[in-house]
Amino acid sequence: MGEEFVSDKEMKCLSLIPGWYSDVSSMWPGEMISHKIEKMLFKGKSKYQDIMVFQSSTYGKIIVLDEIIQHTERDECAYVEMVVHLPLASIPNPKKVLIIGGGMGFTLREVLRYSSVEKVDLVEIDEMVIDVSRKYLPEIAKGYEDPRATLYIEDGNAFVKNAAPGTYDVIIVDSSDPVGPSQFFFEKPFFEAVSKALRPGGVYITQGESAWLFLDVIKKLVEDCNKFFKGSVNYAWTNVPSFPSGAIGFVICSTEGPPVDFINPINKVDVDIISTNSESPLKYYNSKVHAAAFALPTFAEKVLFPKK
Amino acid sequence: MGEEFVSDKEMKCLSLIPGWYSDVSSMWPGEMISHKIEKMLFKGKSKYQDIMVFQSSTYGKIIVLDEIIQHTERDECAYVEMVVHLPLASIPNPKKVLIIGGGMGFTLREVLRYSSVEKVDLVEIDEMVIDVSRKYLPEIAKGYEDPRATLYIEDGNAFVKNAAPGTYDVIIVDSSDPVGPSQFFFEKPFFEAVSKALRPGGVYITQGESAWLFLDVIKKLVEDCNKFFKGSVNYAWTNVPSFPSGAIGFVICSTEGPPVDFINPINKVDVDIISTNSESPLKYYNSKVHAAAFALPTFAEKVLFPKK
Repeated sequence: MGEEFVSDKEMKCLSLIPGWYSDVSSMWPGEMISHKIEKMLFKGKSKYQDIMVFQSSTYGKIIVLDEIIQHTERDECAYVEMVVHLPLASIPNPKKVLIIGGGMGFTLREVLRYSSVEKVDLVEIDEMVIDVSRKYLPEIAKGYEDPRATLYIEDGNAFVKNAAPGTYDVIIVDSSDPVGPSQFFFEKPFFEAVSKALRPGGVYITQGESAWLFLDVIKKLVEDCNKFFKGSVNYAWTNVPSFPSGAIGFVICSTEGPPVDFINPINKVDVDIISTNSESPLKYYNSKVHAAAFALPTFAEKVLFPKK
Repeated sequence: MGEEFVSDKEMKCLSLIPGWYSDVSSMWPGEMISHKIEKMLFKGKSKYQDIMVFQSSTYGKIIVLDEIIQHTERDECAYVEMVVHLPLASIPNPKKVLIIGGGMGFTLREVLRYSSVEKVDLVEIDEMVIDVSRKYLPEIAKGYEDPRATLYIEDGNAFVKNAAPGTYDVIIVDSSDPVGPSQFFFEKPFFEAVSKALRPGGVYITQGESAWLFLDVIKKLVEDCNKFFKGSVNYAWTNVPSFPSGAIGFVICSTEGPPVDFINPINKVDVDIISTNSESPLKYYNSKVHAAAFALPTFAEKVLFPKK
């Protein structure tokens, strides 16, 4: 499980307010979100990044990679359900899904809800992320036991480039920010490879940052994706309390082929049905929230889609 | 302008991290948002509350009442435009508007955008709030110079109870949280008075807290409003980075009379038009965002509107 490790920066964050963890980053200067630590569960350093899990006093377990919060048990639904159901609810009978990153298993859990799904490949470069999840989030990690799921401990960038053309219905990039191990997932060669690995009319979604903080980055993402995804390129967003600015977006695209109507999802998820018909019902996502996610604040719409 | 005053709690917040302001409250234990202070502009204590204005390093000027952030220049659009245009865009030709609270002048600025508006009464109990706004936010406070606006330094609760029945097209409660001077605005006698002061088919909107943090409070608000607003009672929400959980909601109701379609606003605000036809265009609101605001996360929809 790697040795106990506390980086200089982590020490600085932890010691800003004794007993609290603060999400400090030069990516969002001048603002930070902090959570009270109930109990530190794990601090380690893998080949790729610092990994930390702590029990917070009001957000459940919190997972931190390279000093940035990735998930909290309390609000992971707002990110995880959206990044999975925005693409999978938009096409009929999704069967083959590729997840890049997401080693904790949150997105895998959501993909496996679909009875039409036959095969899920999950490619995570950092084995320690999976080990930590199995130990501290066993309910989440149990998706790995599903016979439809295959785990690859590999570089997602290379995996996609080697994939047979037209293999997947949906490719989900559930990565950290475009610094460190995830930077390649935000560059043109990767988009091109993703577009080839998808079937015609297939769907790609990537974590797409917050429009409050990274509008320029998102604008470039949208422009670059326009070069390779000839079906459509869109931006949606959701409110995640523990993320900087309380929001995160998604760039969601389709390849040329059968058109995909992202605004009016083909697989309807009605609040009443999901609240009664499942042992672990959805907490955040429903078809109304799906459609609403594409309504962008004016300041973002003007920059990202000036001619729409 | 009142004497310089620093409360114990304020000192505690300010000193948590030297040079930063942290929004600490027992209302959202275990989490807090912090902003780096560039320059402290004002700290005072009025008859009703502590008032603070500081220049932050990345969110512009920040206004704090009783140690809770009320507005930042960077993201006020996400709250202010929504609390005003959700009601005013939903009825034809709004003419008479009452604002309770909102002494800084943000909501007044937005209401005055409507050429149909003939009369705006703004009732603020705390004169120091207005004085501070005039000094530190003169661009915002200039709405008070508009001949359509009348300012009353009074208790909003009493003002509404004394209003002639059927006076207003829209009543906006732009208050702080339901503790301290604003608590009466979240109780049944006030809702009854508001419903009487509105014309038939008139619209009431109030700051309605975050569903992540106060679902029980919101549920009671919705239930209580159902007793007095016989047109409809709804909940909408918006993403405000500087507010706890990055979100704030609104309870928005109509009285019996001409039906109001809140989801499909009658006064359309198209992104293209507002980005070119105004000297100070809207930053956040547009008709798509308006409709999307009523799409609630499943966990909130199930509790607030279980039979819908």
